Amino acid sequence: MSLLVVGSVALDSVATPFGKVDDALGGSACYFSTSASFFSDVQLVAVIGDHFPEEHVDFLAGRNINLDGLQRSPGKTFRWEGRYEYDLNEAQTLDTRLNVFEQFRPQLSETHREAEYVFLANIDPELQFEVLNQVKKPQLVACDTMNFWIGGKRDALIRTLAHVDILIINEAEVRQLADEPNLIKAAEVVRGFGPRILAVKRGEYGVLMFSEHSVFAAPAYPLESVFDPTGAGDTFAGGFFGYLAATRNLDDASLRRATIFGTVMASFTVEKFSLERLKTLNHSEIEDRYKHLQAMTTFSLPE
Amino acid sequence: MSLLVVGSVALDSVATPFGKVDDALGGSACYFSTSASFFSDVQLVAVIGDHFPEEHVDFLAGRNINLDGLQRSPGKTFRWEGRYEYDLNEAQTLDTRLNVFEQFRPQLSETHREAEYVFLANIDPELQFEVLNQVKKPQLVACDTMNFWIGGKRDALIRTLAHVDILIINEAEVRQLADEPNLIKAAEVVRGFGPRILAVKRGEYGVLMFSEHSVFAAPAYPLESVFDPTGAGDTFAGGFFGYLAATRNLDDASLRRATIFGTVMASFTVEKFSLERLKTLNHSEIEDRYKHLQAMTTFSLPE
Repeated sequence: MSLLVVGSVALDSVATPFGKVDDALGGSACYFSTSASFFSDVQLVAVIGDHFPEEHVDFLAGRNINLDGLQRSPGKTFRWEGRYEYDLNEAQTLDTRLNVFEQFRPQLSETHREAEYVFLANIDPELQFEVLNQVKKPQLVACDTMNFWIGGKRDALIRTLAHVDILIINEAEVRQLADEPNLIKAAEVVRGFGPRILAVKRGEYGVLMFSEHSVFAAPAYPLESVFDPTGAGDTFAGGFFGYLAATRNLDDASLRRATIFGTVMASFTVEKFSLERLKTLNHSEIEDRYKHLQAMTTFSLPE
Repeated sequence: MSLLVVGSVALDSVATPFGKVDDALGGSACYFSTSASFFSDVQLVAVIGDHFPEEHVDFLAGRNINLDGLQRSPGKTFRWEGRYEYDLNEAQTLDTRLNVFEQFRPQLSETHREAEYVFLANIDPELQFEVLNQVKKPQLVACDTMNFWIGGKRDALIRTLAHVDILIINEAEVRQLADEPNLIKAAEVVRGFGPRILAVKRGEYGVLMFSEHSVFAAPAYPLESVFDPTGAGDTFAGGFFGYLAATRNLDDASLRRATIFGTVMASFTVEKFSLERLKTLNHSEIEDRYKHLQAMTTFSLPE
């Protein structure tokens, strides 16, 4: 199982009603790969600039994430600054500085080209397509995207989606992509673009997963305090895809378990800033929340 | 099992992106009692004005709903006019004419005072309290409320809640009532006011049910077309409480089943205007959706 992720490594400055943090480790590829590393071997492809803190590299390496594809370029690392109000569902972006990420054109090594499982994090769909073309025989391809690309690079995105098995996407973005207000209909439209599996992220309301087998509804894990939602979506994707890469099975039961593992992983990420909570996480904590979600959703037929 | 509901009977004029209807049967007590009548005997206490269409009375009577408490007063019946945009989660009220409902002071008959199961639909909390005081030995009391009363009659509402077992309420209203943005914490605060069971309605995201046993998450039934959400909440309450009145059990399994029955009933109401869909509904259709919801939410532990 060789799981390759291409995305961003960033330094995030985030303010929530509960505190703030400056230049903390962030970026889609970091959240994804750290989360996936609890299930599978991971190869990370991304770019960082000069003076990127070595402690962050050490942390990722310590999670057994292969960093051969972590390119160092002259200049500054991608920086994002955002804040959340009490409604933690939506981030307000205060500043985005792409820096070295702006010129990022991933060239996969020979080893990376052999990857079987590929996750294309939320980057320009043209870049997603270029990366995918470099992989020799991908067995399973998943991707994320966002409103910015759906609005601005729709054709490129549709071209990429034709080669994608799993799309992990926000609820509003499914509707936007399908141009259809009803979510159930919108999901079918988007599955028609290529991805046979669709994981629709609904923030605090959980995930709806659509496949050729069924529709599966997973609630979010109930938390008494959500500290910082940054990275929840990428952490979900890491748990979801990491589990699938480990189990090498796409039957209905496996897809449902993957959805729950993604949900559980995301629930830890939002409890602290940055990747702080994932740094101390262990498998028994993951298992506890998995079982709790099962207990929360089970009901029997009437007697 | 004698289930008593006190609430409104109304004539609703509703416009959605899919059509419009004028002076159709509506009101909390109608949706609730029709939904509950699939599970339990129901006694309805409400008021109508002159010229209220006999066909509506005939329909309710045809559902075996006891109408001895349907008071006829001189004047016009309560009328509500509203519209929904494509975001069907929120109604925009265009006009409310309380008419005879404004002077409604329910006087329960001797038979009604014997009721064991009492549902106080969304009316003035002072009136809810007065009604409750007339019931001799209520075994189980449920109620609904809304932002208007939480803001304007908070003390009266808190006084009523002290005598209520089950509160069925919207998500935003739980937060408002508890003055707490986190839903899990807010639910605990509100349970501290009296209701040991809390069913939190989240529209298209389903229901979270809190009790002394556990937290239970039920998704909404996935529908390809939601035609008119009016009455969904009261229909949920009718299925939920109707099932509990029938089963006479408040254990965790029964509360969960009640939540699912409520969810299923609401899913039918929103498929057509007014109570049209409930008029043709049968038990086998209810059972099918119940089973589908179970299939949609089941997942197994990893192997």
